[in-house]
Amino acid sequence: MTEQTTENAYLGGRVRIKQPSKGYRAGVDPVLLAAAIEASSGQTALELGTGVGTAALCLAARVPGIQLHGVEIQPAYASLARENATLNDADFSVFEADLTNLPQDLKQRRFDHVFANPPYFDRNTGNAATDAGREQAMGEDTPLKTWLEVAVKRVQPKGYVTFIHRAERLGDLLRNMPTAMGSLQVQPFVPRPGRDANLVLVRARHSGRAPLRLHAPIQLHSGQTHEKDAEDYTDRIKSVLRDGNSLGFPA
Amino acid sequence: MTEQTTENAYLGGRVRIKQPSKGYRAGVDPVLLAAAIEASSGQTALELGTGVGTAALCLAARVPGIQLHGVEIQPAYASLARENATLNDADFSVFEADLTNLPQDLKQRRFDHVFANPPYFDRNTGNAATDAGREQAMGEDTPLKTWLEVAVKRVQPKGYVTFIHRAERLGDLLRNMPTAMGSLQVQPFVPRPGRDANLVLVRARHSGRAPLRLHAPIQLHSGQTHEKDAEDYTDRIKSVLRDGNSLGFPA
Repeated sequence: MTEQTTENAYLGGRVRIKQPSKGYRAGVDPVLLAAAIEASSGQTALELGTGVGTAALCLAARVPGIQLHGVEIQPAYASLARENATLNDADFSVFEADLTNLPQDLKQRRFDHVFANPPYFDRNTGNAATDAGREQAMGEDTPLKTWLEVAVKRVQPKGYVTFIHRAERLGDLLRNMPTAMGSLQVQPFVPRPGRDANLVLVRARHSGRAPLRLHAPIQLHSGQTHEKDAEDYTDRIKSVLRDGNSLGFPA
Repeated sequence: MTEQTTENAYLGGRVRIKQPSKGYRAGVDPVLLAAAIEASSGQTALELGTGVGTAALCLAARVPGIQLHGVEIQPAYASLARENATLNDADFSVFEADLTNLPQDLKQRRFDHVFANPPYFDRNTGNAATDAGREQAMGEDTPLKTWLEVAVKRVQPKGYVTFIHRAERLGDLLRNMPTAMGSLQVQPFVPRPGRDANLVLVRARHSGRAPLRLHAPIQLHSGQTHEKDAEDYTDRIKSVLRDGNSLGFPA
């Protein structure tokens, strides 16, 4: 049985992604995540929970010569991620595995960058994981603490771990960040001016010694309200989503 | 021997504070802290590390009928805080005690609000406590974790704990927040538009169940650069500092 897929374009057509017509479909989160990773040619990167590979392939498009690896537990997604790697002619190896049981190939290596966009439940559907501790009961098979621990084990000394998540998980991200990490940076995203953050990027450096920085929020949409059918991303976000630029998340 | 003191006016003259001419002198932090506490008449509040009582007395000026208590380890400050209570005709009882060894009077009570502006070291003087763990070596006699634990022990179920601190301590505040607390709110302050936060308020509710909220930053100064000798607080901050209004930190 073949699942029905559609092909979507990202970064102004530079990246083509096949994904299931139904089920989880990526929003802007993986594109923002990729845009936050200040990698250079020849570096290595690992994405945990890579899904169909959207973040990894957006990163590959921006940073030629990067060597990418991805882990995905769901066979259908892992298979699509491999197809997408071929479709985009990217150096991206996908492993079908559980985070807590990585293949030897990955366990023997450490990467310059490890990144993730862990799955979450949409509060609007009533499946919100609203507090620490409730996450598993609410359906997060692998606790956020485990995602962070695995990421930190696989990153090089002086390498970077970058996560994007719902802003409400900021406490869980900081609480569960292994002590090997320092130089934390918190980058909030707000939907519109003056609103609470809806997304947050957290970047940490292995063996980093700098104090935490809480950056000014990046605004996703322009104006105070959404105009029907209008595409209203801010120029900075358009530059990321359409032109494939980095977020310029300060190093 | 009497230490030399000066008297300063806060909240447009509503609050008069005697403080030592030399040594630690309060900036805007205690005034912002007081302005973040949404207390009502008849409620009780406890300030840990009250110093000369600036935050507590700003709160007393805004909320008539509030019953205030303060703990201060340094005798000279505790004594000035008592003088300031009288000077401002406030219902403010000051206890000279170590946080970790509170007097029975306080240990037998729980408060609607517990708040603190823990001491920190100015990075510019080279005394920065830059990461968790180094804090004690760098001179923080009582770790932030202890401040939070004592605060949470003394707050009523459904009561609020509010801390203001350097933004770089956000990780330590969230990591060390006892699990009895929920409904966390993080309120960053930025010196000027687009800058990293320099201060952060964290509010948590005992037995709270709501997800963490990361609010849009409040801007302290208007414009991008400081003009010599110009007083350039934003209107929102002026309304707090001069008119004694609440910050309107959303409940």
